[in-house]
Amino acid sequence: MIEGRVVRIREPGDASVLELVARPIRDPGPGEVRVAVHAAGLNRADVMQRKGFYPAPHGVPADVPGLEHAGVVESIGEGVVEWKVGDRVMGIVGGGAMASHVLVHARELVRVPDAMSFTDAAAIPEVFMTAWDALFVQASLRPGMTVLVHAVGSGIGTAVLQIARRVGARPIGTSRSAEKLARCEQRLGLEHGLVVASQKGIAPAFSSQVLALTEGRGADVIVDTVGGGYLEENVRSLAPHGTIVCLGLLAGAQGSLPMGLLLGKRARIVGSVLRSRPLEEKIALAQRFAREALPWLARGELLPVVDRVLPIESIAEAHRAMEDDANVGKIVLTLSDPA
Amino acid sequence: MIEGRVVRIREPGDASVLELVARPIRDPGPGEVRVAVHAAGLNRADVMQRKGFYPAPHGVPADVPGLEHAGVVESIGEGVVEWKVGDRVMGIVGGGAMASHVLVHARELVRVPDAMSFTDAAAIPEVFMTAWDALFVQASLRPGMTVLVHAVGSGIGTAVLQIARRVGARPIGTSRSAEKLARCEQRLGLEHGLVVASQKGIAPAFSSQVLALTEGRGADVIVDTVGGGYLEENVRSLAPHGTIVCLGLLAGAQGSLPMGLLLGKRARIVGSVLRSRPLEEKIALAQRFAREALPWLARGELLPVVDRVLPIESIAEAHRAMEDDANVGKIVLTLSDPA
Repeated sequence: MIEGRVVRIREPGDASVLELVARPIRDPGPGEVRVAVHAAGLNRADVMQRKGFYPAPHGVPADVPGLEHAGVVESIGEGVVEWKVGDRVMGIVGGGAMASHVLVHARELVRVPDAMSFTDAAAIPEVFMTAWDALFVQASLRPGMTVLVHAVGSGIGTAVLQIARRVGARPIGTSRSAEKLARCEQRLGLEHGLVVASQKGIAPAFSSQVLALTEGRGADVIVDTVGGGYLEENVRSLAPHGTIVCLGLLAGAQGSLPMGLLLGKRARIVGSVLRSRPLEEKIALAQRFAREALPWLARGELLPVVDRVLPIESIAEAHRAMEDDANVGKIVLTLSDPA
Repeated sequence: MIEGRVVRIREPGDASVLELVARPIRDPGPGEVRVAVHAAGLNRADVMQRKGFYPAPHGVPADVPGLEHAGVVESIGEGVVEWKVGDRVMGIVGGGAMASHVLVHARELVRVPDAMSFTDAAAIPEVFMTAWDALFVQASLRPGMTVLVHAVGSGIGTAVLQIARRVGARPIGTSRSAEKLARCEQRLGLEHGLVVASQKGIAPAFSSQVLALTEGRGADVIVDTVGGGYLEENVRSLAPHGTIVCLGLLAGAQGSLPMGLLLGKRARIVGSVLRSRPLEEKIALAQRFAREALPWLARGELLPVVDRVLPIESIAEAHRAMEDDANVGKIVLTLSDPA
């Protein structure tokens, strides 16, 4: 048992309910690793959990947010052969990453490439694993396909955009902000950006633009974190045999589905989420990701996109920045004294 | 060129617009076979096409309904090595099967098992290929899974029920008719039948019963030909990682999709239809079906379910019977003088 520090959600509410508190942290059990967290990426899910809308799954601290971390192996449990103390690692967790330490199964961890900083590494696991899983596992992306990604300036958006470009697929990105699109064009090579204007309660009509950009065929893969009113336009934007991967519900949890179009296009809609997956699936994803995607990141062919880095003491400010939707890429928190 | 007979849709309308007329039928081209049709299965799509709601795809007669046939090879085109004149064959077509002859690509055809009558054979292609494709290709059915199938007394319903039972999956069937459920229990071994009562405009609530029958887990695969208001209850009835295969829209083309449940269950919804598939996909399906499913039918381990057999001259009566929803299994039309 050691003394650590965690970001605690005192009660459901605005960013002011977040507080940094001391908490004892247990030793790693058999097969487990205790990681001293150097940096942790912020996610929408942290904000939702803080508001009381997204309870932590069983087995993780209920009151400590944080879904991804990068740090150093500080202690290993019995039987761990994959890592030794001092190794630089990163990974996803079901919660609790906004803390000085996380306890994880050894096989859930991914090595941080040698030349990479912890703040860059902390911007990787959640969005790149989600994007990689969405594109290749859920949607079977192939070169030459068209990928439509909404909120392209978000962490997941910038990851999807880059992976699609890297494999020779053609990304189309939407954003409500022309400035974010411009930044994605300049920094990440987005070629087709669509500004979408959603009026109150009315979803934007983007399908005609997507169809115009694809000679009437539509997008083969749509990665959607918006949900709600976007569903119908997503189906309209879809190519025959296309796949919509639903990853989030920022605009609402109920959608209207034009089933006739779904049938006619022989299309599919897939719901996907990492957080609630059982351990064995998280391990399988981490292992495949480390093998197949990490080399791209290590060589700098995919870039972690860090909007800003803040010390963990500024966790409330970080939440407010995300709620203001001001970021392009990830907001990363650092722990100066992880021990 | 020979003189044939076809069921013609004179104009969109009720069953009285159907008429049997003479029509010249061309010779088979390279790779094609002309089949003298002995029996043809009736489908909902025939009724919809008659009403003007389901136009024929390109390349098939626009005014002649009929999606499946069983008969005898009457003439073969250049290069056909798969069949010889006199072979007993069956298959799906994009339209035009309610006729004395159909012209098809040689590789779209499936052999009729020796001991099987043409009327039984005509009850097979559309529903068993659809059910087989839905369960194994679209939904990756495995033994031990639970399959929910709506309208279990329909042609597709009785095929899904039998295939699920045959592979050791557990079928649950719904119907609005307790009598149809009883017939499925007696003749086809349905163990779990649910009577669903849909009031005008309100979809039935079957999810609580499905969950009760599955210890709260739900169905791994749902085969749905109803659409519309069933969508939301289908998602509620689904197990984690489950798949809904949408094959039809009898209750409407627009559904309300609870996307939060779809995400949480990491479930998928797949639209599927045979009729509009391109030739190469129809051939691929026919070849796989012949290899993997036909042996079951030849051995009598899966049974074509024929509700009634009528001469082609009674085509209007056949349509009316289907519209009255009076059938359990297929309505088959026979052509007494196919030449």
